[in-house]
Amino acid sequence: MNKKAVVLLSGGLDSTTVLYHALEKGYSCSCLLFDYGQRHRKELKSAVRIAKKNRCEYRIVKIKLPWSESSLTDAQQVLPADLKITARSAGRKTTSLPSTYVPGRNTIFLAFALSYSETIRAGTIFIGANAVDYSGYPDCRPDYYIAWNRLLKSLGAKIKIQAPLIRLDKAGIVKLGSRLGIPFELTWSCYKGGRRPCGVCDSCRFRQKGFREAGLSGK
Amino acid sequence: MNKKAVVLLSGGLDSTTVLYHALEKGYSCSCLLFDYGQRHRKELKSAVRIAKKNRCEYRIVKIKLPWSESSLTDAQQVLPADLKITARSAGRKTTSLPSTYVPGRNTIFLAFALSYSETIRAGTIFIGANAVDYSGYPDCRPDYYIAWNRLLKSLGAKIKIQAPLIRLDKAGIVKLGSRLGIPFELTWSCYKGGRRPCGVCDSCRFRQKGFREAGLSGK
Repeated sequence: MNKKAVVLLSGGLDSTTVLYHALEKGYSCSCLLFDYGQRHRKELKSAVRIAKKNRCEYRIVKIKLPWSESSLTDAQQVLPADLKITARSAGRKTTSLPSTYVPGRNTIFLAFALSYSETIRAGTIFIGANAVDYSGYPDCRPDYYIAWNRLLKSLGAKIKIQAPLIRLDKAGIVKLGSRLGIPFELTWSCYKGGRRPCGVCDSCRFRQKGFREAGLSGK
Repeated sequence: MNKKAVVLLSGGLDSTTVLYHALEKGYSCSCLLFDYGQRHRKELKSAVRIAKKNRCEYRIVKIKLPWSESSLTDAQQVLPADLKITARSAGRKTTSLPSTYVPGRNTIFLAFALSYSETIRAGTIFIGANAVDYSGYPDCRPDYYIAWNRLLKSLGAKIKIQAPLIRLDKAGIVKLGSRLGIPFELTWSCYKGGRRPCGVCDSCRFRQKGFREAGLSGK
């Protein structure tokens, strides 16, 4: 069995947990990082540190979209901080997307992961998507990953995507991460790039909620 | 009906024919061009000229893969020029790919096209892929586009991919292009970037074959 994998690593809680999960399962992991004009570089720096800590090879793909309407890449926009409103849409097909949705983002990331996997002959792509405590992005739902695996099959590619967190809530992810010994202190979830997490944005709130419900102190 | 479309335009015979086809069908077309480290800039210049000639909006996405093993992006490699060998694999699932295959290329292109379409609210993505006279790339086959449309559906995106040339041979494409009045002299197919097409590479040979079989003089 091909135990070579490409892991999409953002430096956040979810993708770091996935990396440690893949390593525990015995995969040799190459990490794929994206520099896509995020509001800050903290996330990317975290990802590099985490890859290096595990002596994983990593590649950074620089993406510049000549169009953009997301608040994650556009410093002019206000970030969403109302967990109730955005969380309500989780798990359902949404018509109104949160402003942090980068059009086609996971599709672009996975397309590059396919290219990288074909090049290094990896058999698995790991991604930290989850469809429970998230902001309602359509590219975090199980159906999307089923469709991706069909696309890969249509190409004759011997590559499968695994999204091991897809049905876990944040508390479940924190518990799994804790069991795997992930360095929580190195991960970065906040949409903002301050010295400390803002504690107010969606991403911070989901993280705090996860730690609280897992009975662990937030880090 | 949403008549706004994104057209993947390389500046070659096929994608130019597709642009003219979409315009004839009444679509308002925005062209998407890629600068992905091709061996030469001629193709890209052709695409810009063709978009401008039709007063179409266009965007150029610059892609730099931090891995590469394709002869189309690596000037050190020799280009394939044996039509018989590579054409033999057309239409079937191939295990050995021609060296001009850029890993995941059309998947990356379509992922960006999705992002662009979502941003400008286009309902159709046009691509010039065809599965008859081609070099055996797995991302030029009908199954692949069926799977892509399923992927888009899983996202809840109101976008469909159309590959109107998919079942045409090169002669059929030349005939269609001729009927649509495409400026053959502006299109560029050759893998090399000389002043004139080399006449020897796969792409040149398929083009010549198309003109010959269509009963038109090669341009």
